[in-house]
Order: sequence, then C-alpha cells, then structure tokens
Amino acid sequence: MAETSDKKEFLVGVDLGGTKILSGVFKNNLECISRAKISTKPGRGPTAVIDRIARCVRDAVDECDLTLKQVRAVGLGAPGAVDSDAGKVVFAPNLGWENEPLKKKLEDLLGLPVFLENDCNICTLGVFETEINPKVRSLAGIFLGTGIGGGLILDGKLYTGSNQVAGEIGHMILEVGGPKCGCGNRGCYEALASRSAIFRRIQTAVKEGQKTILTEMLGPGLADMRSGDLRKAIRQGDKFVEKVVEEAAEYTGIAIANLVNLLNPETIVLGGGLITALEDEMMAIIVETAKDYAFAGTTKHLDIVASKIGDDAGIVGGAVLAKNKSK
Amino acid sequence: MAETSDKKEFLVGVDLGGTKILSGVFKNNLECISRAKISTKPGRGPTAVIDRIARCVRDAVDECDLTLKQVRAVGLGAPGAVDSDAGKVVFAPNLGWENEPLKKKLEDLLGLPVFLENDCNICTLGVFETEINPKVRSLAGIFLGTGIGGGLILDGKLYTGSNQVAGEIGHMILEVGGPKCGCGNRGCYEALASRSAIFRRIQTAVKEGQKTILTEMLGPGLADMRSGDLRKAIRQGDKFVEKVVEEAAEYTGIAIANLVNLLNPETIVLGGGLITALEDEMMAIIVETAKDYAFAGTTKHLDIVASKIGDDAGIVGGAVLAKNKSK
Repeated sequence: MAETSDKKEFLVGVDLGGTKILSGVFKNNLECISRAKISTKPGRGPTAVIDRIARCVRDAVDECDLTLKQVRAVGLGAPGAVDSDAGKVVFAPNLGWENEPLKKKLEDLLGLPVFLENDCNICTLGVFETEINPKVRSLAGIFLGTGIGGGLILDGKLYTGSNQVAGEIGHMILEVGGPKCGCGNRGCYEALASRSAIFRRIQTAVKEGQKTILTEMLGPGLADMRSGDLRKAIRQGDKFVEKVVEEAAEYTGIAIANLVNLLNPETIVLGGGLITALEDEMMAIIVETAKDYAFAGTTKHLDIVASKIGDDAGIVGGAVLAKNKSK
Repeated sequence: MAETSDKKEFLVGVDLGGTKILSGVFKNNLECISRAKISTKPGRGPTAVIDRIARCVRDAVDECDLTLKQVRAVGLGAPGAVDSDAGKVVFAPNLGWENEPLKKKLEDLLGLPVFLENDCNICTLGVFETEINPKVRSLAGIFLGTGIGGGLILDGKLYTGSNQVAGEIGHMILEVGGPKCGCGNRGCYEALASRSAIFRRIQTAVKEGQKTILTEMLGPGLADMRSGDLRKAIRQGDKFVEKVVEEAAEYTGIAIANLVNLLNPETIVLGGGLITALEDEMMAIIVETAKDYAFAGTTKHLDIVASKIGDDAGIVGGAVLAKNKSK
C-alpha cells in the first residue's frame, strides 16, 4: 500500500443509531472495503458517544490496513433533527442530545473533515447513488423500522427543506383521530404501520385472547419479538399475523399515494428492517394499494421498489455525503 | 401610444375554467391594465372554446387600447392534467377534453407565443411573484373552491414533478375509509373540506332535521348556496354552520401539517373562493391546527397566509408564466 499511502482517496460513512454505531470504509467508487460496529451507549453522555464514534471510525480504517491520513472525509447520519450547515445535532430524543456540535468535536478527534445529515436523508442518498438508475432525478426513500422516516431527492439533489427537516413522512396523518403516536398526535402513518405499531396491535390482540403461532415461538409475553418472527409466523400459515402485516402494508401504500400525489416523483424506494424482513409479504400489497389510491397520471412510469442494501444504506449514504461534500 | 406601438412589452394572462374564461393584460411589472370575461360553454366542444379564449384575449387587449402586436406572449392556466412541454391539455374532465393541442391552436388564432400550465400551478406562481416576500424560496399554494388544488414552488421555481402532475394535495387521504371523493377514493382532503364537501354536509344534516338560518335564506332545498351564504349565516349566529366550517378548517390544518412535514416550506398560501369568503372564520383555526399537528421544527419560521389577489391569481399567474417563458 506504500505507493498510495499519502493519497486521501478513501471515504468513511458512519451510521449513528440509538443502540449501535456502524462505520464503513469506501473506495471512491463506493465499494465498501471494511466495516466496524460498536454499541452507542447513549446513557454515558455525548462526549463518550462521540469518542465511541471516533473509535468505530478508527476500527474500520484499521481493519482494511489503512490510516486516517488516507481518508478524505467522513460522512455521518444522525437520528433526529440535524443542522448540517452548523454541523450540529439539534434534537435527537433517542440519544438525549440537544444542540450537540458533533461535527466540530469529531473533526477534533479524527483530524478529518466531517459532514452531517439526518439519518433518513443519508440512507436515501446512499440508495439513490448506488441502487437507482442514474437517469432518475426524483425519488423518495421511506424507511420502516421501529419508527418510519423518509428522505427526498428532487432534481437529482437531496431536498432538506427550509429548516432541514423535510421528509418526515412518518408523521403524516392518515387517520384523523386514529391510534396515538409517540409525537403526541393521533393517526400518524408511523403509529399505523411501523414495526412498533404492528407489534402493539399483535400484543393487544393476544391479550384479548387472539391465538397466534408467535406465542408458541416467543412465549405468552411475546418477548423480543422481531420482524423476522412475523415472517416465520406468516410462512407457517398464521392468518392473524398475515392480516396485521397486510394492513400495515396497505397504510404504507396509502402514504406513498399521498406523497406521489403531492410530489409526482419517478421512484419510491422502501428500506429499513421491516421491509428487509418482510419484502415478499409486503411489497405487492404496497404497490397495489399505492397505485389504487394515487391520482390518475401520477403513477405513470412510477417505480416502487425495495432497497437491497438493507442495513448498509446508512454507511453507504455517509460515504456519498463525504464524497459529494469533499469534492 | 404611438411611440410604443411596435414594442412587444405587454403580457396576457388567461384563466380557463369550466364555467368562465378570464383574461388580463399586464405591464411588464405585472400591473393589470385591463380585464375581460366570457363564459366557457364547454358543451360546444374544444374548437369553439378555443375560439372563445382567443376572443377573450382580444377583448382584454382592445379594452386597454392596445393591439395583439404589442403583446409579447400569452400564459394560460387550464384545469386538469396539462403537459406544458407538449402544449397539450392531457385530461380535463370538467371541459370534456383529452389530449387537446391548445397551445398550437391558440397560437394559430392569435399569432402569439402561448404557454400552458395547470391552473393551480399558475395560481401558485401568480401569488408567489406578486404577494410573497422575494426572499421566500419555497412555498405551497392551496386553493379551496368546488374542489381543492395546489401548487409548489421549490428552490424559487415551480415544481411540477416527473409527469407534471405534482401538487395534487386535494386527493391526499386524511381519513382512511372516510367520505367518498369524486376521484373514486374515500377520505380525500377534498372530500372532507372543499366547498362541495361543506355543502354536502349541510344538506345531509338539513334533510335529517338540522335547523339552520340557511334554509330561511335559501329555502328548504338550499338552492344556489354559495360560500358567502355560509359567512352570512355564521355572522348571524348560526352555530351549526359555524361548526361545519370549523371542521373543514381543521382538515385544512391537518393537510397543511402533512405537507409541511414532508416538504418543510417557508410559506403556505391559501386561496380560492372558500378562503376569500371565509378568511376571518377559517384562517385562525387552520393555522392553529397546522401548528398543532406539524412535527417539531417544521413550523419554525413557517408563515401560513391567505392570498389577497383572490380571483385574479389565475390571470396574474398566466402573465408571470408568459413573462418567464418569453424572456
């Protein structure tokens, strides 16, 4: 590696989550050459977490026998409201952070340029650059997991809105007066179709006497239920779980129709743990419902696809951000 | 006028509706110097309607003692799906038009460049250029009348989406399984909060025995009910009408919250006959509900305002389009 040792030709992408930090080293062509993973431990406070991010970056760089000197920039996706211009995490409830100058602190620790974005925006960017036909200029990414987040690409660029908080599709009201959401409102898409919403519906029904294979698999309290358990239950013929998952897929289809009516993008890409685990069970229903509810004309040429890069979307998107910003 | 007679310094804006055609002649600074109005008579077919549009343009130009030679371009807003690049009205159910090459036909009749856009996009453009602080770069226009339409300005430009059908906020589902909409779906914003939705709710309640001043004003069949009648009833203390209008204002607030969560614009501007007639009764509720339902951060610095140009939005927007396209 001696010949390239002084060239800053590598990029690092970081996905900062509430429970784990992922990092990846990428070549300029966005090929991933190493990964590292570490728990976040948000309870130890921002300074400790930022130390852990730096450690996770060093680990991934060391893993592929490089040094930080060979890295051009770091791109990082953080949960919550992120002010990328100021380099701050404005508000991240699941980290317990407010106005945290993450860019500055991490740059001081690593001696490298660091660029921040909201995690769903980063994932959308990663999917857009690596999975989607380069001719596509407008795309919405929707990521279904514990919560539901989104990101927008308009005219070929990440669209973040006037306060950098665009893309909050999870809190679109789909059912006025519907189930309560973590945000305080009722009837949000997230409260109807996220993994948490599905789990809650199953747990409530089980308490009311509903039979399901899931209680045989996980015990009566349904401890540690995961998206993959839903898939297993459906494949074993559990009609109840199938129906709950179908309903969630229908809500996703309706949310997509609303987005498509408003923005008329070329492509919708779905990602996140729920889609990774239940793509076969959900995608056909999502596509059918979206086309059914969308206004005439908006779905002409519209592609609705599932992302294949799964958990990597965050680190890939971080590398894309680092690449774009350090040009 | 002799000294300017050969300069093509005037613009014409046209608002083509299902019942009437409006035209206006504008100076380059967008000051309106004359207007004309004529019924559409869509039953006579596209050729006759396009002749009437040409007549309406000639009437407005003649009214201010000009000739067509002094006009630089015509900008026209048409209802329904418009392909502005092809110069066609793709689909306009309330005109009964499909794939009508309006641009070409009108250019042949007038000997002037003609530019087309969807009517709600045109109105948004008109409001954006004449009523809004020039610093604002992102805006959504929502127009409430018989139906509900919208338009988007992103990064300072009209955003029309990949098939030029963006901005269909009226068909955003707000209440899964809610009242039936003209588009065939249920629970669309338009089916909950347009003038038609309000009238339908009042008529249904009256049939079920609800007392209201409106029956004294208009007779038991509520014939020819208009937005202004709702205002009069509310100002005479009719609590039932007040409640129906309040509910419609709440749905508009929720629709705005959904849009704001997704796009995080700087300004929302409301227009259309319903808002013109009921601004005092509706705006405070709309603003309060939108801020209540929108996600934290998205309403920071957000302005939600009522347009003051009323019915002129279409012709003003047409003049802006003509100006922008003929530069």
